[in-house]
Amino acid sequence: MNLILLEPGEIDASGLAVLTGARARHIERVLHAVSGSQLRIGVVDGPRGVAAVESVDSGTVALRCRLDGERPPLPPVDLLLALPRPKVMRRLWAQLAALGVGHIMLTNADKVERDYFDAHTLLPEHYRPLLIEGLQQARDTRLPRVTIHRQFRVLVEDLLAVGSGFSRIAESGVSRIARVVADPSAAASIQETLRPHRDERVLLAVGPEGGWNTFELDLLNTHGFESVSMGTRTLRSDTACVALIAITHSAIRGT
Amino acid sequence: MNLILLEPGEIDASGLAVLTGARARHIERVLHAVSGSQLRIGVVDGPRGVAAVESVDSGTVALRCRLDGERPPLPPVDLLLALPRPKVMRRLWAQLAALGVGHIMLTNADKVERDYFDAHTLLPEHYRPLLIEGLQQARDTRLPRVTIHRQFRVLVEDLLAVGSGFSRIAESGVSRIARVVADPSAAASIQETLRPHRDERVLLAVGPEGGWNTFELDLLNTHGFESVSMGTRTLRSDTACVALIAITHSAIRGT
Repeated sequence: MNLILLEPGEIDASGLAVLTGARARHIERVLHAVSGSQLRIGVVDGPRGVAAVESVDSGTVALRCRLDGERPPLPPVDLLLALPRPKVMRRLWAQLAALGVGHIMLTNADKVERDYFDAHTLLPEHYRPLLIEGLQQARDTRLPRVTIHRQFRVLVEDLLAVGSGFSRIAESGVSRIARVVADPSAAASIQETLRPHRDERVLLAVGPEGGWNTFELDLLNTHGFESVSMGTRTLRSDTACVALIAITHSAIRGT
Repeated sequence: MNLILLEPGEIDASGLAVLTGARARHIERVLHAVSGSQLRIGVVDGPRGVAAVESVDSGTVALRCRLDGERPPLPPVDLLLALPRPKVMRRLWAQLAALGVGHIMLTNADKVERDYFDAHTLLPEHYRPLLIEGLQQARDTRLPRVTIHRQFRVLVEDLLAVGSGFSRIAESGVSRIARVVADPSAAASIQETLRPHRDERVLLAVGPEGGWNTFELDLLNTHGFESVSMGTRTLRSDTACVALIAITHSAIRGT
């Protein structure tokens, strides 16, 4: 943990937070904090700051919090991901939050098995701690928004329609969202496609392990998603997702 | 498996290969191959081709191989990686081979625990099957070369000295190797640093989870490694490695 994330309700009016459980153990055993130590902290979806350790006592840690840092900006990349198999999805949660994704939209597709939607890992009580773990790794506080869509067509045609208010564009203060879909057969690279889109948000669509079918890819292309490729190597879903998000971030930073 | 990799000795003079074990099970149960099916194949460090299934019989598959494809080019990225903890290293092998790395140099560093070098995952009999798994995923045949270095300074000062012949530069047919080291505090991005280095090989150095110490970073800088950053987010070693290799590949593809 490079930052300890607290829930808004955990800090009382005087700035005191008393932690038990995993974070307290981490502070005690990994960070070796003692009374007087300073720790980086943050509030979920709120500002960052520092805390002075007031006491460490067998699994209970008292922190005096000062939240005078900025609320970090919303990460400029959103992800539309065909739901991978549960084992892969479990591995992805923390990595997505650490890499920086504003909105994770998990969708059905022809090559997504229906029973993936019943997986335990899609329950907020399962994935939220993993997202928090990723944020703590990356020193971020902005919890990705997660939405789950069993109807791909409704997602692309209706929810993602320009002006629908579904995406986080309003909150991010940019004027539009660039849309790209990863397609190994595409001629254009992510970088060249995003070159005219500096300082915009990007919505990146990543298909299932077996690829989008023709209907799905056509629907995405019709709705403004430009096909992009990162080369001819076929990667495992989780590797592909991490690689694509990293290249997308790098491309829109414009450097 | 998007390609079935065979060892050179597995194909007899008439082009016949008889497989048992994991590959045979995969061909039978996942690919549902029957007599007459065509499969993509390759030979480790050799050419790619196709095979016609001659028979599938309770765990034994006979393939008639035609290796008329090209030997794939050596991936243009080499990796100098401070040895991560065994659990992370285990997760990385297949991903590194899939992303495409020519030479994996694992090194000691100040913030690498000494006992990581005793880990089971550094034995060729453990990592080779994982590298093969990654190659089969990415349809490559070029097995990354793996070397392990307990002396960081000897690696950087002696082995990597220009003209030492340690790196795969001669084989790759390019005239030089660009060198970069990932350093979150660097001002330059990977992409802008590699812009003048199209069509060269890149040797990418990735530090331990706690970072290089000052001596190590200075030594790398002195030996031609330019410091580059991919942003301020701190990532888990395996996520960082995948992200950095993906951005590096993307940067030298020049698009």
